[in-house]
Amino acid sequence: MDRFRIIEGGAEKRDVRRLMLEIGVAARKAARTLALAPRQRKNGALTLAAAHLRTSAHDIVAANARDMETASAAGASSANLDRLMLNAARIESMARGLEDIAALPDPVGKVLAVYERPNGLKIERVATPLGVIGVIYESRPNVTADAGALCLKSGNATILRGGSDSFHSSSMIHACLVEGLRSAGLPVESIQLVPTRDRAAVGEMLAGLSGNVDVIVPRGGKSLVARVQEDARVPVFAHLEGIVHVYIDGAADFDKARNITLNSKMRRPGVCGAAETLLVDRAVAQTMLAPLVTMLLDAGCQVRGDPQTLAVDARVVAATEEDWRSEYLDAIISVKVVNGLDEAIGHIENYGSHHTDCIVTENPGIAARFLAEVDSAIVLHNASTQFADGGEFGFGGEIGIATGRMHARGPVGLEQLCTFNYRVHGNGQTRT
Amino acid sequence: MDRFRIIEGGAEKRDVRRLMLEIGVAARKAARTLALAPRQRKNGALTLAAAHLRTSAHDIVAANARDMETASAAGASSANLDRLMLNAARIESMARGLEDIAALPDPVGKVLAVYERPNGLKIERVATPLGVIGVIYESRPNVTADAGALCLKSGNATILRGGSDSFHSSSMIHACLVEGLRSAGLPVESIQLVPTRDRAAVGEMLAGLSGNVDVIVPRGGKSLVARVQEDARVPVFAHLEGIVHVYIDGAADFDKARNITLNSKMRRPGVCGAAETLLVDRAVAQTMLAPLVTMLLDAGCQVRGDPQTLAVDARVVAATEEDWRSEYLDAIISVKVVNGLDEAIGHIENYGSHHTDCIVTENPGIAARFLAEVDSAIVLHNASTQFADGGEFGFGGEIGIATGRMHARGPVGLEQLCTFNYRVHGNGQTRT
Repeated sequence: MDRFRIIEGGAEKRDVRRLMLEIGVAARKAARTLALAPRQRKNGALTLAAAHLRTSAHDIVAANARDMETASAAGASSANLDRLMLNAARIESMARGLEDIAALPDPVGKVLAVYERPNGLKIERVATPLGVIGVIYESRPNVTADAGALCLKSGNATILRGGSDSFHSSSMIHACLVEGLRSAGLPVESIQLVPTRDRAAVGEMLAGLSGNVDVIVPRGGKSLVARVQEDARVPVFAHLEGIVHVYIDGAADFDKARNITLNSKMRRPGVCGAAETLLVDRAVAQTMLAPLVTMLLDAGCQVRGDPQTLAVDARVVAATEEDWRSEYLDAIISVKVVNGLDEAIGHIENYGSHHTDCIVTENPGIAARFLAEVDSAIVLHNASTQFADGGEFGFGGEIGIATGRMHARGPVGLEQLCTFNYRVHGNGQTRT
Repeated sequence: MDRFRIIEGGAEKRDVRRLMLEIGVAARKAARTLALAPRQRKNGALTLAAAHLRTSAHDIVAANARDMETASAAGASSANLDRLMLNAARIESMARGLEDIAALPDPVGKVLAVYERPNGLKIERVATPLGVIGVIYESRPNVTADAGALCLKSGNATILRGGSDSFHSSSMIHACLVEGLRSAGLPVESIQLVPTRDRAAVGEMLAGLSGNVDVIVPRGGKSLVARVQEDARVPVFAHLEGIVHVYIDGAADFDKARNITLNSKMRRPGVCGAAETLLVDRAVAQTMLAPLVTMLLDAGCQVRGDPQTLAVDARVVAATEEDWRSEYLDAIISVKVVNGLDEAIGHIENYGSHHTDCIVTENPGIAARFLAEVDSAIVLHNASTQFADGGEFGFGGEIGIATGRMHARGPVGLEQLCTFNYRVHGNGQTRT
């Protein structure tokens, strides 16, 4: 199709605007068909796309090699190259991901509530797709498959804007999704990949494509999310950062404190649910602070501490005010002694990001207060913060984690990619 | 307090910005207290405010007389003057409204879902307040009490921006709410009324007061809602218009068709759930079109019809293309004959506003298709469109009706003024 030609940087802004508007209008049209599509057809498209991914593995790796070469020549970091890289195992994992999503229950049409009014009207609240979802992501090309599949399963059309780095990889993956849609008899415009690297395309998506985008999901680093949150004229499902706290209460069990602290920080230090700050109640600082800090240091974690923590071990460095506001996404943790629950909650409200926070305590009343008073999307009692994940919540997958207060909060899975309407069943009722 | 001085039009924009930011910061602080306030205290504030309204009735009427005089001198229409007018009966009705809201169940802390994961984690989804709600309204001063009370009950702080017309009336009502808050020991900043008529204050609210407004609710005419939807940088709960359809299917019961059509249009032609267009299936046009049109005409409704409707009665006027897109909010209806369900749905999707639409039919399969395929916030089968109302839905009240797809759709009651968080209960679980 003509509009899928690649427009490189030289294209005029007006052309990008026209192209993106066409994509938006096509997405809206596809969304209407998708909203009413039977689940078998959606699931068929996903399993067929998985098959196409497997048979195209060689071509995908070849396209990925082009992206890797360009990124490498441009001096990309080894972390970035690793995010970009696709091999047979990663492609197989993507294909399985599509099949897993196909196997999930269909969220569309689920009756969320039903009740009868005194006048005999039966009112149902039924899940329906949101409409058109724009996904803006960076180097990981597998987001093309994951995000497209979650949106398709939830009956939404998707407009994918991948990173320039992964352009060829994403295009090949997208072609497999389109083949799946075509084979299943669904509109090929159900999942569109923006066919230009021109950055103006992102601005057009954020402006909403004349009402043809219902929500934007950014997937990537803090600067991408910040730009999207700042500029989007449509709702955004995102979190800017996860400044995640573990609070060791005076009534904490020491073994739980050890295990949860270590897992929350070190299982995978780079995920948004990884702990960034450890708060220790003064009541147990004497007994627990030193062993917890030593454990973290011995595990290879840098510790940035307040004066009391600093005194524990020569390897501890002094924390600055900036540390309490930092999302390290690395093997670094800030540690502070606080005067009990109120100071812990005050610190979290002041420095936190309303993402995920945890208390370790054996006192149920203290736990209840923490869970009720800490205003974060996810609050945990005696469990690792690394459970902040749609899969771990039983959602079968997630398109991201949101810290906004509207619609979706916490992991955004299939149910959160739906809205609802009210269906009222009467037998001739009129209003007096 | 100094910041409650009245700033008339002459104040500089910078002053309004500073004033509004102070209001936003104070609202955010109050919201934190309100979110954790026991229900007895919130209900106490509401019943005490009702008592203050009753004892202040004389002063409220006097303040209202000043507003009425100014509006009258400025040439306000009699409809506008009626909306503005307060008397003893209307004040009593406001006071009862506050007591009714106090008597409703508290939405905050409601467990919306609870389940256990295979690893033993117990996950709860619990309703929590949205935060700070900005309400921008026009001449009806009673919105001050209604909106303030619904937001308070749902644990949210409110920033009210009333119409200039109702400035003195709203200020008196607001003073009663503040007395209720004070007597109940809640922050007086829980419900703030913008103390200036300067229009720049609205712009500041729409910009979000530096993150201190979570959602805006506009209450008023189409131009107000359009401006808010266009300019707001925060989420908006609103509907621009209600272009509401009644579709009389080929399998309709004639008595139901008559009753539902008449009630949907004429019970109160000025509400957003009033029918604006009647669609009649060609299969029953021969038998039902003429009696339905005659009924409407005889009830004092102007009928604007397509050619077939025009032929029914000399009083029918020809509909133009514009009529199918018109929300009359008056005793006027557009009438069209369509070729069955698909054309009816196509017309509604093309011309409607996704607010409320109704089918009259005895065929359950046809009804099911209409309810599934018409993408409106409320779809009804064999019931009047005037049931589109939070009270009729059993919500105990509403702050408005939303046609957006995010968070709240349809009537916005106490539950929709809440968000939620996840509370995870473990016994030491870590992630592998």
